[in-house]
Amino acid sequence: MIFPTLDDLRAACRDLPAGDEAAAAAALARQAVLTKPPGSLGRLEDLAVWLARWQGRAIPKLDRISIVVFAGNHGVAARGVSAFPIDVTAQMVANYAAGGAGINRLAETAGAALSVVPLELDRPTADFTKAPAMDEADFLAAVSAGYEAVSPENDLLAVGEMGIGNTTAAAALCAALLGGGAGRWVGRGTGVDDHGLARKRDAVEAGLARHGAKVADPLAIAAALGGRELAAMMGATLAARRHGVPMLLDGYVASAAVLPLSRLSTDALAHCRAAHCSAEPGHKALLSALGLPPLLDVGMRLGEATGAAVAMLLVRAAVSCHAGMATFAEAGVAEKTS
Amino acid sequence: MIFPTLDDLRAACRDLPAGDEAAAAAALARQAVLTKPPGSLGRLEDLAVWLARWQGRAIPKLDRISIVVFAGNHGVAARGVSAFPIDVTAQMVANYAAGGAGINRLAETAGAALSVVPLELDRPTADFTKAPAMDEADFLAAVSAGYEAVSPENDLLAVGEMGIGNTTAAAALCAALLGGGAGRWVGRGTGVDDHGLARKRDAVEAGLARHGAKVADPLAIAAALGGRELAAMMGATLAARRHGVPMLLDGYVASAAVLPLSRLSTDALAHCRAAHCSAEPGHKALLSALGLPPLLDVGMRLGEATGAAVAMLLVRAAVSCHAGMATFAEAGVAEKTS
Repeated sequence: MIFPTLDDLRAACRDLPAGDEAAAAAALARQAVLTKPPGSLGRLEDLAVWLARWQGRAIPKLDRISIVVFAGNHGVAARGVSAFPIDVTAQMVANYAAGGAGINRLAETAGAALSVVPLELDRPTADFTKAPAMDEADFLAAVSAGYEAVSPENDLLAVGEMGIGNTTAAAALCAALLGGGAGRWVGRGTGVDDHGLARKRDAVEAGLARHGAKVADPLAIAAALGGRELAAMMGATLAARRHGVPMLLDGYVASAAVLPLSRLSTDALAHCRAAHCSAEPGHKALLSALGLPPLLDVGMRLGEATGAAVAMLLVRAAVSCHAGMATFAEAGVAEKTS
Repeated sequence: MIFPTLDDLRAACRDLPAGDEAAAAAALARQAVLTKPPGSLGRLEDLAVWLARWQGRAIPKLDRISIVVFAGNHGVAARGVSAFPIDVTAQMVANYAAGGAGINRLAETAGAALSVVPLELDRPTADFTKAPAMDEADFLAAVSAGYEAVSPENDLLAVGEMGIGNTTAAAALCAALLGGGAGRWVGRGTGVDDHGLARKRDAVEAGLARHGAKVADPLAIAAALGGRELAAMMGATLAARRHGVPMLLDGYVASAAVLPLSRLSTDALAHCRAAHCSAEPGHKALLSALGLPPLLDVGMRLGEATGAAVAMLLVRAAVSCHAGMATFAEAGVAEKTS
């Protein structure tokens, strides 16, 4: 286990390596001489420069793209906070193995290798309205599993999640670390009705009442209100940061999962871009708090890294232009005159 | 020439064929039973249903995707309305042939066949501040060339443009047909400075003063203020509508080009989705007037159908999910309970 103690984890969040500013500057200079009006590829230009910075290559490559989906079960699901029964978590893991889920199709479309890591599905976390969701050992095991799932060889990474009840955990984390009360952070998730929505709000309020005093310690909050798949996504994001692997953040749960990391170290997410803004209403405010404007806003709210997989297509487009376009000089095209 | 007279063109804009609502309904029903929370793929679900409607297949395919880029030169460019010299139009056409432009790379990424149709580049349209840009014969020839460039065999189409000065023509068309004055519709295009911006505004105002009386006839306005590549994009869009080929609208110029069509027939663009919102400031208002919300908003303003090519990646993602995901029954996953 890579993090036997919380202090080991805290130490790994300090002294994070910088990106390669020389590679980024070279990429920026190249963008300025490709055969297009300067700036006219918009955020595709930023994506190319961002990848250059974290890959340490003026012309980044996308030979090895990985998507890792972590699955976990939540004790709070027993409070009726989801539109789906808790068995669906394991059923969807079987669906991933069979190739039938949204992320299977989207990973294939993006040319990404997909792996799925189920985290003790037969042992849900505790109901956070009654006790901390995880004890320290459980939490560190999940963070370590996430960290160890990331290869430094990746050119681009995304992580995602499956876990019935996990938008409730995400909302509780956001409410604890960003304030504003349950109403600001609770949405319909997979599609609860008004009664389910009220139960979600009640659960989040109860979780805040029970664990809110720990708010000064983001890791304690992550253990008390989060879940194994959220902890694993945090660990994977930290691994990517330490290995210099650029990463696309997926939706509401994946973004909430890395919020504690950003509280521990202000530049912990410097290697991330936000793939999309989820239809889950709290996501917009969360991305704003993280300082990460989304690439896409197409009403997705499926999780599983599906939003990140779609955004990978934009990253492929960006690299294709950056690496393959002719310069003004190469093509004999006149440059801007005014 | 498919449209020898304006009356032939007007006739082609009437009695447009409807989409296949049975195929659309079957696609919608399939989306409801795929292994995801209903609606959770957001606009990807809408894209699948839209393609089904226009392809007439419950499970649409994307075996044959085409991008056609039309190029034209503009007399109004002599008024200093662009940041680039007029020679760049032909130079970029050579760049397309050599494979060095943004659209070459993005068409390849999207798996689309690219063709480029230069329209009498050595004979720019007239300066619309002094005369109609095109006479009737010139206009009909360009519309016909666009119409004839579209194969009914396409599963998906986008058209784009290259033409130094054509954001000025687009702004003039929008101002004439939608009102609000030049200031609402003129932007920096490829990147003019403040002086160039003032010259663009002056040119548009002069064009409106000269040709504004024709506003009751959208085709006369298109001939007077537009350009050959805009007329060709209009013709291609009409061809796609008549052939039932779904189409992605590109940026500001491509959207302005089809505005006259939407004025002739309220459902002329029923087969279109807007690929993106350009950084060119008038585009947002134009898309709103067309009733077409953009799929992407990533600050692109390159033209050439580049925004549409990137949006094609989202369409591929949509079809991949729609065609390849398992249903709840197939995967043995429990459905929604509340």
